[in-house]
Amino acid sequence: MLDCAIIGGGPAGLTAGLYATRGGLKNVTMFEMGAPGGQITQSSEIENYPGVFREGMTGMELMEPWPEQCMHFGLKHEMREVKRVTKEGDHFTIHLDSGDTQEAKTVIVATGSTPRRAGFPGEEEFFGRGVSTCATCDGFFYKGKPTAVLGGGDTALEEALYLANICSKVYLIHRRDTFRAAPPTVERVMKNDKIELVLNAKIKEAFGGPMGLDGLKIEFKDGTERVLEVPGVFVFVGNNVNNHVLRQSDGSYLCDVNDNGEVIVDLKMRTNVPGLYAAGDLRIEAAKQVVCAASDGAIAGMQALEHVLEHQ
Amino acid sequence: MLDCAIIGGGPAGLTAGLYATRGGLKNVTMFEMGAPGGQITQSSEIENYPGVFREGMTGMELMEPWPEQCMHFGLKHEMREVKRVTKEGDHFTIHLDSGDTQEAKTVIVATGSTPRRAGFPGEEEFFGRGVSTCATCDGFFYKGKPTAVLGGGDTALEEALYLANICSKVYLIHRRDTFRAAPPTVERVMKNDKIELVLNAKIKEAFGGPMGLDGLKIEFKDGTERVLEVPGVFVFVGNNVNNHVLRQSDGSYLCDVNDNGEVIVDLKMRTNVPGLYAAGDLRIEAAKQVVCAASDGAIAGMQALEHVLEHQ
Repeated sequence: MLDCAIIGGGPAGLTAGLYATRGGLKNVTMFEMGAPGGQITQSSEIENYPGVFREGMTGMELMEPWPEQCMHFGLKHEMREVKRVTKEGDHFTIHLDSGDTQEAKTVIVATGSTPRRAGFPGEEEFFGRGVSTCATCDGFFYKGKPTAVLGGGDTALEEALYLANICSKVYLIHRRDTFRAAPPTVERVMKNDKIELVLNAKIKEAFGGPMGLDGLKIEFKDGTERVLEVPGVFVFVGNNVNNHVLRQSDGSYLCDVNDNGEVIVDLKMRTNVPGLYAAGDLRIEAAKQVVCAASDGAIAGMQALEHVLEHQ
Repeated sequence: MLDCAIIGGGPAGLTAGLYATRGGLKNVTMFEMGAPGGQITQSSEIENYPGVFREGMTGMELMEPWPEQCMHFGLKHEMREVKRVTKEGDHFTIHLDSGDTQEAKTVIVATGSTPRRAGFPGEEEFFGRGVSTCATCDGFFYKGKPTAVLGGGDTALEEALYLANICSKVYLIHRRDTFRAAPPTVERVMKNDKIELVLNAKIKEAFGGPMGLDGLKIEFKDGTERVLEVPGVFVFVGNNVNNHVLRQSDGSYLCDVNDNGEVIVDLKMRTNVPGLYAAGDLRIEAAKQVVCAASDGAIAGMQALEHVLEHQ
């Protein structure tokens, strides 16, 4: 019987393990198929994790010391895929890839979310080198430069407004001529003279060189084309919440989730199921920043510990 | 007119400044009377801030790089004491020590909380070298060793249970023979055979040497004495929430606070007053960990930015 099963090995999962084991939990296992570190390891530069600040530091470099520190107090790492978590009575069952199972007193789900790709040529090639899915993370790197945003929903428009405050110009590329976003947000976009709407349009191709992105080839519905010379494009075409481990055999979720599939938590990262916590990008209102995911993990780890102590 | 006024220069205030300025806010000032860094700079050792892990690293060493990083994007630091924050219409007024004022569009309060001292001889001398006010932070340093807890409320008993899971023994010192804590917590303490109750007792003196604390001299109500040889004592005799800047001239608070004076926030660190945020140890349910305070600051900084962009 595990004291705590942690699902996911990004900043949230690692920090949860650090706090749970350092607090005295004996059997804590983090299930993560790949190398620990999470999504941030794909970032070419990070400068907003407080306390760690080196010119041009990559996400991989930021995360490099985490596994040793977080596993120093007894956290175990199993390179196994978790298929599903169920609860019977007071205990949870972790269903693993090979069909075997593991019992646990508490579970912390820290499986994150995955921004959807738009699918244009060059998107993968320049990901992290001009193609981004986070304006808060990467907007500053394009200070005073023109950028583009792809998408027509709330997130796309809000991020375009964020970028317009930093960048010299923002091309907002959308495949339709109307937006799905909230009317006040649409109005602010319309009034912002740094944002140029590029409507009925899609990205035909992203192009660049060894230094990164140089620009985008745009194709309009009427067949015409245009080239936008931008060193950065932000893609906001949706977000997949990685909540599949919470999905039960009848299609319901083990705990309450919102309409987007994000796990509903309180300030202590508690779900509505006692002993089950969520931390990081898969929870509601997630800020999607390394420091915030780490904090969620710390809180969830402390809560799991308290739960085990209370029920022993 | 400031875009954002940040009150307090610990991990929460500094990170709020980093996120607000890097996100594009122009006039952001952090008001902090002393050197930035916060309460953690008094800690003799920290090993649970993820990503920064050096043997025997002090809190001062952890915080050393923060001000440069957080002020790199334009955050200003004013060594001024804030007496009070008021709101008139859409704007806030920051009332400063000398009687002059500063207007601000948004305010982030990150003034923390201060654990109360019990007042026994040696408490200050050995603070951070055997005397602690945080079991989550420092309990692990006494793994397998005996420790003492001073106090009789919920926090004291919960922290005693936490320590009992790590330490060889926990002396629970309380000046009365009954506890103010929740009955189920008291029951768990009673049942825990690692916890020895030392009742009707107070700490007469903490003693030790250059390496830190060696033990406590206990005095009972009946005048008898006892020596406890412990390398660590955890003092939980209350917590002062530093919310005085929110106190209005009529004695009310600028925003909703709970019975302990902690500021009520949601997952986005919003108070019930638009444009006013709280971050770190003075908010409800604060975990009182550096990484959590930093996360609060990041979230509050992003929210302040969004508020300014929405209202410009």
